[in-house]
Amino acid sequence: MAKKSVCIVGSGNWGSAIAKIVGNNVKDSSKFEREVRMYMYEENVDGRKLTEIVNTEHENIKYLPGVKLPENVVAIPDVGAACKDADILVFVLPHQFVRSTCLKMAESVKRDAVAVSLIKGFAITDSGIKFISEIITETLGIECAVMMGANLAGEVASEQFCESTIGSKNEATGQMLKELFGTSYFRCTVVEDARTVESCGALKNVVGIGAGIVDGLGYGDNTKAAVIRLGLMEMIKFCEVFVPGSKMETFFESCGIADLVATCHGGRNRMLGESVVRTNKTIRELEKEILRGQSFQGPLVAKEIFEMFQERKWVERFPLFVAVHKICKREMEPKNFIDCLREHPEHMQ
Amino acid sequence: MAKKSVCIVGSGNWGSAIAKIVGNNVKDSSKFEREVRMYMYEENVDGRKLTEIVNTEHENIKYLPGVKLPENVVAIPDVGAACKDADILVFVLPHQFVRSTCLKMAESVKRDAVAVSLIKGFAITDSGIKFISEIITETLGIECAVMMGANLAGEVASEQFCESTIGSKNEATGQMLKELFGTSYFRCTVVEDARTVESCGALKNVVGIGAGIVDGLGYGDNTKAAVIRLGLMEMIKFCEVFVPGSKMETFFESCGIADLVATCHGGRNRMLGESVVRTNKTIRELEKEILRGQSFQGPLVAKEIFEMFQERKWVERFPLFVAVHKICKREMEPKNFIDCLREHPEHMQ
Repeated sequence: MAKKSVCIVGSGNWGSAIAKIVGNNVKDSSKFEREVRMYMYEENVDGRKLTEIVNTEHENIKYLPGVKLPENVVAIPDVGAACKDADILVFVLPHQFVRSTCLKMAESVKRDAVAVSLIKGFAITDSGIKFISEIITETLGIECAVMMGANLAGEVASEQFCESTIGSKNEATGQMLKELFGTSYFRCTVVEDARTVESCGALKNVVGIGAGIVDGLGYGDNTKAAVIRLGLMEMIKFCEVFVPGSKMETFFESCGIADLVATCHGGRNRMLGESVVRTNKTIRELEKEILRGQSFQGPLVAKEIFEMFQERKWVERFPLFVAVHKICKREMEPKNFIDCLREHPEHMQ
Repeated sequence: MAKKSVCIVGSGNWGSAIAKIVGNNVKDSSKFEREVRMYMYEENVDGRKLTEIVNTEHENIKYLPGVKLPENVVAIPDVGAACKDADILVFVLPHQFVRSTCLKMAESVKRDAVAVSLIKGFAITDSGIKFISEIITETLGIECAVMMGANLAGEVASEQFCESTIGSKNEATGQMLKELFGTSYFRCTVVEDARTVESCGALKNVVGIGAGIVDGLGYGDNTKAAVIRLGLMEMIKFCEVFVPGSKMETFFESCGIADLVATCHGGRNRMLGESVVRTNKTIRELEKEILRGQSFQGPLVAKEIFEMFQERKWVERFPLFVAVHKICKREMEPKNFIDCLREHPEHMQ
């Protein structure tokens, strides 16, 4: 069988960490091509092009400083050139750029390529929210799996043991991706319930902001545990409504409770929630300060699902998600978040 | 209806925190007697009796310093005198003292009294492990409910919002206990699946030690999330085997994932796990140092269940629980705990 070639579409914090894993895994593989192309949105850093820095110094000094990337990872600023001839496309862009990037790729992508999305979020369409993997499938006409889990990028880059969940309806694709991504410190499990895996990845960031809000208010582990529990119940409820056939077992995979717990303790959206309480800055200002201009995914997802809840008159059914949105918008006092916990339906119907 | 009188059997860290809640709740109640008796094992602290200090200064200066107890909480060093005439017995002793304490109480306890156990652990009998609530029911001949949740004592004492789960087969008892314990910052939910609630309370401390071990080894949130996830799966598996009729929903209550997460981040057993890695001290030495001589519950439970697994040839089915036990006994190197995570059965059968 011909070796498969891999293109990583995106090169931020998580994209660079996964490029390190993939680059090392394919080096001596009989199944994958040695060169891994990585699409990188071109930026100037200290007067030099970021792609040039990556290709000479093998380090993404802007988004993952201090971590060496394998030399066989090659940064390319043109997405069409990067994805041409690739058999496997690993999507790891901020979710608001997926559609426009796919449109630029459409001409170049192989018809039998396979995609996997590592993107946390939903896409907005006129008819409501949509899965990122669906957008990829629709715009490129190819199959799209997902991979989500308790995978804070910095810790993955420093090779600390963690788990991840691959969601793929196609078992062969799932097994191939497991070989592409799995290492002794990055353990992948494959499940078929891909839509639930993807929903968890989007929704956990909303709960993560909630965890940061209680941190900012000065509460401890008991209160945060209540946020995590009630947040998880809203995630499950959400999937019951939006993901036909969603399985409870999926929430017990790394993409479910594990990622939720990691996000609520060490994630960037948790940090955002804390800053929203402790400062008067807007989300935009905090993005500039904390993420060097990248977007926090949590507030975007919170806004998208809030609008959908409004339309369908479901605002009361997801009080925690809604409270996070309103606090991010400065339409609700952070201290009232505790009332939301106190009055939360004890058992979801 | 006659007012019910309450006795708290135990007065450590958690016992004192719950005495504060109960004392305040009964003060102006039409359902409960104003005086709450609290059995306190007598100790000398700085040349004075601890009961005397509590009854004059209204503070347990040894186990919950800095927190004022309501004046209507009265410490009594004789357990027979403390529990005489009580309608509700709140058990909150270290689990190894339950049977001997119950035997001392047997003569004095009212035949129609109701008990509730806040004790985390199992009891050992010749035929294997046994629930604490069963021991109470057997020795005293009375009904026994349980209450467990994400309730780190110090945070409850400082009135930070949290949730707790009451497990009671008898709905009326559950509702009565909810009135006794519930406050605006301590939210109680009643479930019927009491044995699962109680199992969670015992087992989470074993997982908590595991979380401390990865902290001690220098790993971050991703790795800890894997410990929590795999620990939860072993907890569920344990209940499938030992708790006929155990319900999955119960793990989504505060006693389940919420308490597990809080324990793995802020609990005393987490601290123990970290110290086991970072020092060469024995559990006994660490108890003296960290708990002023009280026992950590996690190592005891780990040992009890390990012995039972051995007898039933189930050691391979609970690798995380077993590894925690062996590391506490210094029979396994802490660094090998990561292998246990790496090789853990992906999906429990």
